[in-house]
Amino acid sequence: MGATGAVGQQMKEQLEKRNFPINNIVFLSSSRSAGKKIDFNGKVYTVQEAKAESFEEIDIALFSAGGSVSEKLAPEAVKRGAIVIDNTSAFRMSKDVPLVVPEVNKGDLRLHKGIIANPNCSTIQMVCALQPLKELFGLKKVVVSTYQAVSGAGIDAINELKMQSIDFDNAKQAEAKMLPVKSAEHHYPIAFNVIPQIDQFADNGYTLEEMKMINETKKIMHDDALAVAATCVRLPVVTGHSESIYVELDKVATVEQIKQAIKNAPGVKLMDDPSNQVYPMPLMTAGLDEVFVGRIRQDLDNPNGFHLWVVADNLVKGAALNSVQIAEALIEENIV
Amino acid sequence: MGATGAVGQQMKEQLEKRNFPINNIVFLSSSRSAGKKIDFNGKVYTVQEAKAESFEEIDIALFSAGGSVSEKLAPEAVKRGAIVIDNTSAFRMSKDVPLVVPEVNKGDLRLHKGIIANPNCSTIQMVCALQPLKELFGLKKVVVSTYQAVSGAGIDAINELKMQSIDFDNAKQAEAKMLPVKSAEHHYPIAFNVIPQIDQFADNGYTLEEMKMINETKKIMHDDALAVAATCVRLPVVTGHSESIYVELDKVATVEQIKQAIKNAPGVKLMDDPSNQVYPMPLMTAGLDEVFVGRIRQDLDNPNGFHLWVVADNLVKGAALNSVQIAEALIEENIV
Repeated sequence: MGATGAVGQQMKEQLEKRNFPINNIVFLSSSRSAGKKIDFNGKVYTVQEAKAESFEEIDIALFSAGGSVSEKLAPEAVKRGAIVIDNTSAFRMSKDVPLVVPEVNKGDLRLHKGIIANPNCSTIQMVCALQPLKELFGLKKVVVSTYQAVSGAGIDAINELKMQSIDFDNAKQAEAKMLPVKSAEHHYPIAFNVIPQIDQFADNGYTLEEMKMINETKKIMHDDALAVAATCVRLPVVTGHSESIYVELDKVATVEQIKQAIKNAPGVKLMDDPSNQVYPMPLMTAGLDEVFVGRIRQDLDNPNGFHLWVVADNLVKGAALNSVQIAEALIEENIV
Repeated sequence: MGATGAVGQQMKEQLEKRNFPINNIVFLSSSRSAGKKIDFNGKVYTVQEAKAESFEEIDIALFSAGGSVSEKLAPEAVKRGAIVIDNTSAFRMSKDVPLVVPEVNKGDLRLHKGIIANPNCSTIQMVCALQPLKELFGLKKVVVSTYQAVSGAGIDAINELKMQSIDFDNAKQAEAKMLPVKSAEHHYPIAFNVIPQIDQFADNGYTLEEMKMINETKKIMHDDALAVAATCVRLPVVTGHSESIYVELDKVATVEQIKQAIKNAPGVKLMDDPSNQVYPMPLMTAGLDEVFVGRIRQDLDNPNGFHLWVVADNLVKGAALNSVQIAEALIEENIV
């Protein structure tokens, strides 16, 4: 569901690339995109308008078409026997809905009641990098500042960045309709700019994106006492979120121990050699599956404190890949 | 000195705009740029090649032509009776050299022995925002992640961003010669990318830019015990550095008190109204004198902790304006 969107396209590619076992696949969308053609494993499919009945005989339904669509159709899919893996924020904080990053809390899948939520893109890559540190040293406090790509706001936002980038000298006057939030009152150019707003503001002055990172991290890591703070920022980058993370551990550690922990962990890749200018950057890691970690440094004042630079493709591990990995885990664990 | 560079041009504009009292002005540069014409207050000047003798009869010499030039020529200027205001990092941490942001430590000017250092751009805007909090509540710890513009790396870096931005679809293959560091072995495209390296790496894994922010902040604020951590990151933005700052205060405060403190402080401007999507952004504040502060939020776990979003034009308050303000203070305080 949402097959023609930026994440939907990535989901299709992940299913192909990973040889996901499929008897029958149906590509769904809103009425607006229905009728489009999609090439999947060498066969052409016509995108169909999603209705409640579309989910008859479906085992696993991947949803990525916005929260209101999920709210309406995910329960219909569940009613018809599908397990829904939902990439929107609609159900993430619901008590009955597991919120899963397979590398971190695969076990939670067994608790599902029909819907499993895929976390927010910026949350996924952070918890992948933090989980190995948690297992070895414990986590006390996390302060993250994000550097997020426009693809998180959809294909129209990518096109807007592209159009705005052409007129370097008049960037300030560039037409802006998509960012920071399509439905918001004010829109700002993103080319050659930085927008410290992603999603709407909550009453406490944090954005919903920031609250997602805070609340989802506690839920995924099963630790309500973990202190998490986030500042989420949109940049003129097409794909790939970066995060500057300061973490305070329960126990003292060394940089070498942190590097070793990252090296041994699933889904993450150490990319950290300052003397050769090796560190992750979004332009270089776009399209790749892993969460890349570099710039690992001990805080100069607190031996329990460490700074990390974490980059991942927000459409891949941050969305499509994680959803497909959840589907794979459902099969592996005989849940589906 | 360095009249034809990005900062030199801004210095000239600030001197004009602020009606700085001048009897005689000389524009200096390397031999490469000597002979160029500069229009100043309606009169055309020819840029001259800088030599030791260029500083005869000069009261105040503004230097912004790189550290090695300052190391060579600043002592010559002092020998000839000039007070040097140096915008490079050459002398900033020298014991005998005051490092001054007038809003924070104007009093240090009296201790000068010929050279006064202008701090690093990213340091200046941070201490301007933190000083009012320090005065009212005390500072314990600062964790900053920066979002820095390419103009900090000079005019050639701006042109490189411009060239790279034209070919949106092949950004990864774009020619890169300037960033992260012109003299470094590897160069990476900055358009549609994020580079977590500014300046060279120190042995401890921090970059020199990060160490500047850490050490300069302690020196300017006269507080060696202040814990400061920095992650410095270059973005595809032309002008205007942004900073996501987490600060722990000695005393508990409220968001309203922090806002009031910023409102009452010199050189900083509160720009913080989330309900109307008002917060500072580099594209909108480029060319302006003030340090803009928004997104002020209390940490959700620590009542002494606050998050700020601080934006300033790195060529204006971050360099040229601060240097000219130092010169103005020298006159006001009868030091020159």
